[in-house]
Amino acid sequence: MQTNKKQNDTRGLAGQTVGETKICSVNQTQLIYRGYEIADLSKNTTFEETAYLLLEGKKPNKKELDDFKDDLKQRRFLPSSVVDMIKKTATETPHAHPMSVLRSAVSLLSHHQDDLENTSRESELKKAKDLLAKIPTIIGVYQHSLEKKNHVDPDQNLDHAGNLLWCMTGQRPTPLMQKVMDVSLILYAEHDFNASTFTSRVITSTNSDMYSAVCGGIGALKGNLHGGANEAAMDMLFSIMKDVESEGLSVEQWMERAFVEKRKLMGFGHRVYKNGDHRAGILRSLGLRFVEEEKPEIKKWFDLGDSVQAIMLKHKNIHPNVDFPCGLTYFAMGIPVPQYTPIFVASRIAGWCAHVMEQRSNNRIIRPLASYTGPELKEWHGE
Amino acid sequence: MQTNKKQNDTRGLAGQTVGETKICSVNQTQLIYRGYEIADLSKNTTFEETAYLLLEGKKPNKKELDDFKDDLKQRRFLPSSVVDMIKKTATETPHAHPMSVLRSAVSLLSHHQDDLENTSRESELKKAKDLLAKIPTIIGVYQHSLEKKNHVDPDQNLDHAGNLLWCMTGQRPTPLMQKVMDVSLILYAEHDFNASTFTSRVITSTNSDMYSAVCGGIGALKGNLHGGANEAAMDMLFSIMKDVESEGLSVEQWMERAFVEKRKLMGFGHRVYKNGDHRAGILRSLGLRFVEEEKPEIKKWFDLGDSVQAIMLKHKNIHPNVDFPCGLTYFAMGIPVPQYTPIFVASRIAGWCAHVMEQRSNNRIIRPLASYTGPELKEWHGE
Repeated sequence: MQTNKKQNDTRGLAGQTVGETKICSVNQTQLIYRGYEIADLSKNTTFEETAYLLLEGKKPNKKELDDFKDDLKQRRFLPSSVVDMIKKTATETPHAHPMSVLRSAVSLLSHHQDDLENTSRESELKKAKDLLAKIPTIIGVYQHSLEKKNHVDPDQNLDHAGNLLWCMTGQRPTPLMQKVMDVSLILYAEHDFNASTFTSRVITSTNSDMYSAVCGGIGALKGNLHGGANEAAMDMLFSIMKDVESEGLSVEQWMERAFVEKRKLMGFGHRVYKNGDHRAGILRSLGLRFVEEEKPEIKKWFDLGDSVQAIMLKHKNIHPNVDFPCGLTYFAMGIPVPQYTPIFVASRIAGWCAHVMEQRSNNRIIRPLASYTGPELKEWHGE
Repeated sequence: MQTNKKQNDTRGLAGQTVGETKICSVNQTQLIYRGYEIADLSKNTTFEETAYLLLEGKKPNKKELDDFKDDLKQRRFLPSSVVDMIKKTATETPHAHPMSVLRSAVSLLSHHQDDLENTSRESELKKAKDLLAKIPTIIGVYQHSLEKKNHVDPDQNLDHAGNLLWCMTGQRPTPLMQKVMDVSLILYAEHDFNASTFTSRVITSTNSDMYSAVCGGIGALKGNLHGGANEAAMDMLFSIMKDVESEGLSVEQWMERAFVEKRKLMGFGHRVYKNGDHRAGILRSLGLRFVEEEKPEIKKWFDLGDSVQAIMLKHKNIHPNVDFPCGLTYFAMGIPVPQYTPIFVASRIAGWCAHVMEQRSNNRIIRPLASYTGPELKEWHGE
């Protein structure tokens, strides 16, 4: 059992080991997917190779990888009723949260799954690939519909990361943009028993279906203490830049005021990592390279990020997590902020589905107990 | 920490207390909602009073109860886009699971919630009432659409249980039918950290919204180790009756064969209750009274249930849980089997929403750890 700064606070299952996994190992300096460290994976693989590794449990050979990529490409198109629902949502309730719409679309896709209840590994792998392939399309249809544009069809010449950028923006991404997105997806693909994955496993443990588990995962990831943190981090930087530019505050002054007001500063700290999240460094370097080569006008935002990061470390001894550079990097790529968490889904879906299959392979219903602190026993008509 | 028969099996958080609740207490002989025992509640309250108790944390006075009931009635109608989605599903993908469709409808309802992200108690209570009121309508629209009939509008003269029966069947329920349904809803409304409620709390713990939590809860309840068990129990009785009538087997012979084949017999045993689930007795008595008074032709099914129950106790020393008489009782009321678990939602939604509010009031993200049992660290290009 690991220890935690807030050792006396037993809420949130903090520091408690609740099960086994062969998929992922997290410690203070390493994040390992099925034996491979994330620095190695982000340098030497594509997202598809990492997704195959997570889902199939082994590194693919060339033919296996080609087949996997082809299979994904064949599965990218959505049933027309799902497209219609998304377009109608953008027209009728355009304030609908993109994560809510993504969940609605995944839930509707389950209506089309003839073998929803088939829990064989073969069937579950097929569903996992179907979800992986279709999520970028869902994200793109909603974004284009919100902008009152016709959505673009998936581009079969592009891999997962490039196609995701294409579906969202309708612009052909540069090779470096594709690389940056690809690495961010690799970094986000898996993180053992994080809240959304744990949600997916609890749902699976009742013998429910994969789509039920994924809808639960999307709901959990939406929260700003989890996947929503990359959006929250960027929103915080917008606030700082605005106040710095309009009020003439220094970043240090803004932060000191925030410390006094005990504002929660987003994109910092992590339940597991206490000495920094090394995914943050990997993504910051790559994001910075992209900005310097292709978007120099965005450089001032990275400088702001570096200042905030340095002040947090100096005053609070808290490091940024991966959501901090991620928000900056997606912003530099011109992605609308409300799409950051849906992009996280386009990656983490690989981890969720791997955990659904692992949970099934050695299942017992996850049903803990609670300690009752409510009123003493009394009678309804006794008062 | 309670003990468990399978003491060496630590999977599934069995026997582990993971948090506190003021909402519900479960022990071997009592199920208490905010201080009131379930036998008392099922005898002396209506479902609306119990739902108010769970959500508001106290027994309502007459005016509070009247206002609550009026408020629910005002909220029963669905946005037309939600009705359209359900009808289209029944036409295009009629094999869609009713629980999937119910989740899709709840997810779509979230698009219409202007204050989805408002987590004040007042806003959350409003959303809880909205969900409570609309779920029977969703169930009814899908059932009628599957039967290629126009759905009926909610009946404002009927309370929650009666209106649910009306929405599902399009028939005015007798007073005794309403009473039986009402009691079944009271019995199902809450059960501390069961898998679906725990799912809702994990999702809430990321600061996600109530609809996200409820969609997760629906997904977890769908599994046949949880809410799906009342359907599975009735399906098992159909099998037994068919084989008994066609093969001339006795019930005892059928059961002995099932024991040899190690078939899982549904509706028996419980993670918490080891000496019987007293909800089962309450519902069996009332269901039997209904059958004797209004559906004598169904009596043979209750007799079959009694035989199965007696054999299970004799051979395995396992008692039925509430799902066993529930399946029989809903069958007697003419409710299609695939609607049993959605009915469970029409009740448990009260408990889920109470837990969402309680989790928010003292939140910490629920993020446990996992023990890694996968491959040793290796390099991607090292093989």
